[in-house]
Amino acid sequence: MSITVVGSVAFDTIETPAGRMERCLGGAATYFSLAASYFTDVRVIAVVGEDFGAKEQAVFDAHSISTAGIEHTAGKSFFWEGSYLDNLNEAKTHITDLNVFASFSPKIPSAYRDSEFLFLANIDPVLQRRVREAMPQARLVAGDTMNYWIKDHRPALLEVLKGLDILLINDTETKMIAGNNNLVQAARVVMSMGPKALVVKHGEYGATLFHGATPKDESAGRAFRAPAMPLEEVVDPTGAGDSFAGGFFGYLASQPEQSPAVFRRAMFYGSVMGSFACERFGTERLQQITRQEIDNRFNIFRELTHLA
Amino acid sequence: MSITVVGSVAFDTIETPAGRMERCLGGAATYFSLAASYFTDVRVIAVVGEDFGAKEQAVFDAHSISTAGIEHTAGKSFFWEGSYLDNLNEAKTHITDLNVFASFSPKIPSAYRDSEFLFLANIDPVLQRRVREAMPQARLVAGDTMNYWIKDHRPALLEVLKGLDILLINDTETKMIAGNNNLVQAARVVMSMGPKALVVKHGEYGATLFHGATPKDESAGRAFRAPAMPLEEVVDPTGAGDSFAGGFFGYLASQPEQSPAVFRRAMFYGSVMGSFACERFGTERLQQITRQEIDNRFNIFRELTHLA
Repeated sequence: MSITVVGSVAFDTIETPAGRMERCLGGAATYFSLAASYFTDVRVIAVVGEDFGAKEQAVFDAHSISTAGIEHTAGKSFFWEGSYLDNLNEAKTHITDLNVFASFSPKIPSAYRDSEFLFLANIDPVLQRRVREAMPQARLVAGDTMNYWIKDHRPALLEVLKGLDILLINDTETKMIAGNNNLVQAARVVMSMGPKALVVKHGEYGATLFHGATPKDESAGRAFRAPAMPLEEVVDPTGAGDSFAGGFFGYLASQPEQSPAVFRRAMFYGSVMGSFACERFGTERLQQITRQEIDNRFNIFRELTHLA
Repeated sequence: MSITVVGSVAFDTIETPAGRMERCLGGAATYFSLAASYFTDVRVIAVVGEDFGAKEQAVFDAHSISTAGIEHTAGKSFFWEGSYLDNLNEAKTHITDLNVFASFSPKIPSAYRDSEFLFLANIDPVLQRRVREAMPQARLVAGDTMNYWIKDHRPALLEVLKGLDILLINDTETKMIAGNNNLVQAARVVMSMGPKALVVKHGEYGATLFHGATPKDESAGRAFRAPAMPLEEVVDPTGAGDSFAGGFFGYLASQPEQSPAVFRRAMFYGSVMGSFACERFGTERLQQITRQEIDNRFNIFRELTHLA
């Protein structure tokens, strides 16, 4: 089943203890779609400027990702510059130039309208909602958000949450949305706002899936915790969360039904793709993984967590 | 098989968002031995003052923990006061009164000398080493330490590490000992200093076991990650790490052999006991668990992490 994703396609300049890379191809929709492309067909809705050329287009083409929904417009693409010199778990943002993204108005190609899976990457919740409403056939809708929208655009965000099947955010965002510092309680509050499932990403410690309606007993309802890969070297954590989302949602979309067992495996595939993303700068590693490598790492994750 | 543990028996005044408790029975050896007592016989080496009375003694007696090695001396017991008002993951220490602990010189009852399992809780590494040398029959020796000893008593600590089979510490301590900010690399450095196995505790995110001699391939050698329990309410995290150690080492000592599969289950039992410890102030919850509750929670942990 195909996934349509709406989000940013951008250029990133990134500095980490491993080095510095100028103007890598990045953006949430890029990481997401590359990661998801190993599992299913992906279609992107985004906007880019004149600096997005044949070289960038080729990255999508090599993974058969549909770019009919990427609007080309005058100006420059979204640009971000950040560093992780002190802390690999948290980027320090130096520059955010929205450029053409400032007036992004998602346009959905008619060929996308049969996508049963829709991913709303981290953009203005007003746009997330508009895309969701324009794609009523989508039967499984997942999304992401960030502190900026949670703090300053809460009413619009709450509207988006109502229409989500799955929300993927981190610990801090979960607690911030809920106004509650206990993760289990916060997860329940967030799920009462709409999402039927909540994936809380813990960075290097993996991620927890909360699903089921009433996580109130001592097992925290139906929770499932996927590990992250203990990595010898984290070259660049940029996009790890979006890559997690791509692996997770890509695997879900590739399966005939989305049972609890499939959700569990999807959590593992999310962690697998997130771990690959960190091994090189930008999307470099995501561009060249084999299915065999993915399956090998899935098995390592099983070995890492299962009793026998 | 019996475990001998050397460490602190103390009184703690603790403040958390859930409330304040004055002078709870605490100390690493207390948490450790209560947690381990659900799995095997435990013998304690410690020192207490005149404030340690029949009420405190009864806690150990109720769990058939041998206290022949607890020396009673003039003065007051070790006292600690701390709070977790801003952050449940990190105590803010208000008062540390070593009292009788300042001149602690461990005395090992002859009846303890056949213990094949020895746990060196977080005390002066000079004392850890002395106890280890006085118990040459111990065939599995595990230990803990903390930032203070790592920073200011490194030579003595390195001597202790040489004699350890298993070291249980947290992320920060691992990186501090190794002088390396990558956990996998740091784990390898620490293990090159002596311990054949390293358990790195991640607080609310569980713990990772590194074992095997050469964790150099992409699977980080033989690593195993146990989750922590997503808890509705963390009443008091004091002693969670010591309780983890007690569950982990207690289970290991209870088994006829310490195979890799047994180590994995021990990681789960460690997390189980750590999660119970957080549910009430001090050792209150650890004093009254049933074996059935332990096994139920073990099964929840399996459910929380296993694909099917």
